[in-house]
Amino acid sequence: MNVDDDLVRSFEIERIEGATVVARAEHVAHEEPLEIQVNGASVAVLMRTPGHDVELARGFLLTERIVASLHDVESVRHCTTVPDPEAEENVIQVRLRDGVPFDLERLRRHTFASSSCGVCGKATIENACATAPRVDSSVIVEVSMLAGLPAALRAAQPAFDATGGLHAAGLFSSDGKLVVAREDVGRHNAVDKVVGARFDNHASIECTTLLVSGRLSFELVQKCAAARIPVLAGISEPTSLAVRAARALNITLVGFLREGTMNVYAGVARVHAGGR
Amino acid sequence: MNVDDDLVRSFEIERIEGATVVARAEHVAHEEPLEIQVNGASVAVLMRTPGHDVELARGFLLTERIVASLHDVESVRHCTTVPDPEAEENVIQVRLRDGVPFDLERLRRHTFASSSCGVCGKATIENACATAPRVDSSVIVEVSMLAGLPAALRAAQPAFDATGGLHAAGLFSSDGKLVVAREDVGRHNAVDKVVGARFDNHASIECTTLLVSGRLSFELVQKCAAARIPVLAGISEPTSLAVRAARALNITLVGFLREGTMNVYAGVARVHAGGR
Repeated sequence: MNVDDDLVRSFEIERIEGATVVARAEHVAHEEPLEIQVNGASVAVLMRTPGHDVELARGFLLTERIVASLHDVESVRHCTTVPDPEAEENVIQVRLRDGVPFDLERLRRHTFASSSCGVCGKATIENACATAPRVDSSVIVEVSMLAGLPAALRAAQPAFDATGGLHAAGLFSSDGKLVVAREDVGRHNAVDKVVGARFDNHASIECTTLLVSGRLSFELVQKCAAARIPVLAGISEPTSLAVRAARALNITLVGFLREGTMNVYAGVARVHAGGR
Repeated sequence: MNVDDDLVRSFEIERIEGATVVARAEHVAHEEPLEIQVNGASVAVLMRTPGHDVELARGFLLTERIVASLHDVESVRHCTTVPDPEAEENVIQVRLRDGVPFDLERLRRHTFASSSCGVCGKATIENACATAPRVDSSVIVEVSMLAGLPAALRAAQPAFDATGGLHAAGLFSSDGKLVVAREDVGRHNAVDKVVGARFDNHASIECTTLLVSGRLSFELVQKCAAARIPVLAGISEPTSLAVRAARALNITLVGFLREGTMNVYAGVARVHAGGR
């Protein structure tokens, strides 16, 4: 299957301009459910854009802390025994290495209680963050490097122009080189795909900075902490909880990265401005 | 607590323009976790903007089909016995009426398996939608009415201009009157808040059209089906699964609603253009 073909789908729709109604074909972002099974048990269904599913699953396992390290993963592959052939692409089976602990009940309680947030039933962010390791990277990023990231990511977004409906994430090295970029209907999925791709194909390349096209939420900060990414940057703005979590977890949080200007909400010690 | 004060938070940040670094205060969208407990058991933690929490919980119960009707709900209130006073606003306790069935294990399996999507382990959208009732409203909406909705919603978004970081949702009557609007860091939360508010305060007012500021995902179509809202409109674009679900569930799906033009992706029979 061609991955790029998977990013969009075409539908016959009605275009209305005032009193004029015209039928035409329109591209929209492709969205399908992906069920992730670990050792035969379902752990999540993600609404994602098909393509790079193995990377997505591996990134998800890491950033949601289902595994402590991707060395714990024996194999990740599409299911080939789904009764409905149409759904064959929509189930991923993960096998953990022998001896790796996998407590489904604990995971269920965790996933259930935390649903979309990862707060684990802890009602204050400081409590939630206290259980996550701080990111201790001593990397320095130049303002001029950060300023160049949005254009590099945009250039790697083939489907965005077709639909306007996909989020993008890109992982960059310290000198601003784009290592990998992915698009997805889900912001979190785009991040998990680049994290999974980094560990699959580029594990030896240092990736210090993650750039996302959407807003900077608490959950993205959590994912960076789990993947040990010290700098999270966005074209848009953070939430209050993202700022507090980034400060607690020692992650550099850069928002409103536009036309060479930016707001640094946390971890400014890693940001080097030429004039300082 | 003043609700409007809850929409944004101020942080001291560093603003960088080229080589110039200036410390300043910046507003960001307020985000906090809200744990929803039903009959004493935790069923979800939502990352939401504080305020209108009771409406959010009621809307969530309905659109996630935890209850079949809000008549099943005895009471919804903030917890007053949280050990940490700071977290007191972040836990909502729901009590169902005596005799209303509540199978936590079934819900856990459902929530767990479906995570963020509600596909319930069914791997194709047609299967998933087959279990939801079609929306059979015979309402007709005028193109001229739809064209006026974005300006009406924007006028009801006080915090958006302050942060740029909040999603909005508005429920409208058939003649285009805004019944209720809410803002939230989460698209789904904004929808649940207006659904909850409608049933709390405006149950007698017919609300046929939901307008959202963000993208039109599969999950929003599902929520409309559960709340029996026949017309879902957005300023932005839908996903492929949203189009397929809207067609399967007989929901009118209008996207790219901008400057009097729009795309109708599903249910065009309900849309009346003057010239047709």
